[in-house]
Amino acid sequence: SSVSTPIRATLFPGDGIGPEIADSVKQVFSAAEVPIEWEEHYVGDTIDPRTQSFLTWESLESVRRNGVGLKGPMATPIGKGHRSLNLTLRKELNLYANVRPCYSLPGYKTRYDNVDLITIRENTEGEYSGLEHQVVRGVVESLKIITRQASLRVAEYAFHYAKTHGRERVSAIHKANIMQKTDGLFLKCCREVAEKYPEITYEEVVIDNCCMMLVKNPALFDVLVMPNLYGDIISDLCAGLVGGLGLTPSCNIGEGGIALAEAVHGSAPDIAGKNLANPTALLLSAVTMLRHLELNDKAEQIQNAILNTVAEGKYRTADLGGSSSTSDFTKAICDHL
Amino acid sequence: SSVSTPIRATLFPGDGIGPEIADSVKQVFSAAEVPIEWEEHYVGDTIDPRTQSFLTWESLESVRRNGVGLKGPMATPIGKGHRSLNLTLRKELNLYANVRPCYSLPGYKTRYDNVDLITIRENTEGEYSGLEHQVVRGVVESLKIITRQASLRVAEYAFHYAKTHGRERVSAIHKANIMQKTDGLFLKCCREVAEKYPEITYEEVVIDNCCMMLVKNPALFDVLVMPNLYGDIISDLCAGLVGGLGLTPSCNIGEGGIALAEAVHGSAPDIAGKNLANPTALLLSAVTMLRHLELNDKAEQIQNAILNTVAEGKYRTADLGGSSSTSDFTKAICDHL
Ligand SMILES: CC(C)[C@H](C(=O)O)[C@@H](O)C(=O)O
Ligand SMILES: CC(C)[C@H](C(=O)O)[C@@H](O)C(=O)O
Repeated sequence: SSVSTPIRATLFPGDGIGPEIADSVKQVFSAAEVPIEWEEHYVGDTIDPRTQSFLTWESLESVRRNGVGLKGPMATPIGKGHRSLNLTLRKELNLYANVRPCYSLPGYKTRYDNVDLITIRENTEGEYSGLEHQVVRGVVESLKIITRQASLRVAEYAFHYAKTHGRERVSAIHKANIMQKTDGLFLKCCREVAEKYPEITYEEVVIDNCCMMLVKNPALFDVLVMPNLYGDIISDLCAGLVGGLGLTPSCNIGEGGIALAEAVHGSAPDIAGKNLANPTALLLSAVTMLRHLELNDKAEQIQNAILNTVAEGKYRTADLGGSSSTSDFTKAICDHL
Repeated sequence: SSVSTPIRATLFPGDGIGPEIADSVKQVFSAAEVPIEWEEHYVGDTIDPRTQSFLTWESLESVRRNGVGLKGPMATPIGKGHRSLNLTLRKELNLYANVRPCYSLPGYKTRYDNVDLITIRENTEGEYSGLEHQVVRGVVESLKIITRQASLRVAEYAFHYAKTHGRERVSAIHKANIMQKTDGLFLKCCREVAEKYPEITYEEVVIDNCCMMLVKNPALFDVLVMPNLYGDIISDLCAGLVGGLGLTPSCNIGEGGIALAEAVHGSAPDIAGKNLANPTALLLSAVTMLRHLELNDKAEQIQNAILNTVAEGKYRTADLGGSSSTSDFTKAICDHL
């Protein structure tokens, strides 16, 4: 059974506050007796020519082999000749869908109540093609690439997610009134997939209007699927509705069923090593990893412990208006298990 | 003086609810004795080959001649062989900056208090280039074009606006961490202009982070300047913070000092002709036109009458939760003058 043969998962603690919040996950997982054995990998300090970045080839191999991983914040070192760490991971592991559940945390008040949204972002192409050039002096262009293959793949993921998670509606977010060909192809693919899921309501919403509706009444939406840049923008907007990136989980899905969960907030070097960081986003991301592994009981148990600790309000880190240390907050979660 | 020789201004009532809300502006302006003579132009029902759209050449000439205009909502008729009316106006009149003040209306409660932002959007290029093509079957691309000329022009407008309107800070919104060349050029131009305005604080904010900060705490921003699509998205988001596009003014600035104010909401064909439409956005847009003409006393007087009527809450249209007709609301504004 799962207790006797632990599941191996890759752990990238990352930089800055990464190691501290990764410790928090390790403690909570061990208190909950989650049958996971971590394989830790750090970002290197030289460029690995096989990845063209500070990520080592071995660390990528580890995720490929294990099929699951958890990633803390990684600040891309400044300098030339290498790629962003986040983009390298997406590219090398073909992480085609970024899934970000965004829900109100009971007891943590923001301007919005009962938010419960899922943003699903195409994670490999669009405005992130990296294709740019100067046409003549003072005139530059970037290429946005949309393919049928990547659009169908993320649309399929979104509808499948909706169906298997009891969701009722998928909204495709676009600007096809202006980018008729690129966003038009994205919508065409979403429509094709929608036909296969008659039980899920499908709608199309223009991105500007979507952002206005989200800030007026987020309850109008359920699952949102969209091209890369719109996903980048809207997932952050949604995180803002419930308190910010320190509280929201994220999971990247790759070809062949790879899942790399990650905290999408920054590495906060100013408070690194001071036992002040809030591990909530990484913990909730780790929970999405457990669900991916179908360790649903453990996932539920840990998620409840996190949410109850936040709701109780006795132990909160400074970013949430409290004065708890990372370790006291973590201990409180373990006590709630 | 201005009373004896009225200023001529072009008026596009537009479609749907357009004529009703334009009537409201005419009534309020006449009650306030604004020295303006309207030159009305309607959208045609055949394509004018000189504009490649349903906008007549004469109507564009009217704006060019008068230098100022006011525009209601225009729904682009469905079909082929013609351009969007809004885009045609921007292109033909070279409306390079779209200025959208966004402030909380006293007495009209939303989740946010004391919002007071100005978004300034580059309005002619970027993702709106219209350059798109299929590369091979299933692979399409759109070109985003950023030029030094258009970026400097809108940055200059934004800083000049900030300086002349008592604003303290300009934030350039971008995604230069991904689109290093295009958004990088935009930022470079903003920095160049910022150097000429040492009294204005200048900062750069990545668009995803900007959206998160806006929904968490809009008071963090003052004047925002950005490329076309980001402006489209963020101006709608900001409008959502204070109640939506039915309440927020917009003004387009063109080369040679042209100003075309417009309500950016839709033409609401479902309620057209029923005396139910809310004229606030068009009225407040008309006020920005008066300020452009330096008719500041009239602008102030009318703006106060509008805001006081909304604040009083006795006469409100259905979209604001009231049951007033367009004409009763308009009459209430006139009574407040
Ligand atoms: C850091 C940056 C390159 C990244 C992105 O734009 O995708 C981030 O905003 C994210 O959402 O993961
Ligand atoms: C109608 C549409 C083409 C337009 C745009 O995208 O610019 C609208 O959203 C706006 O902001 O004026």
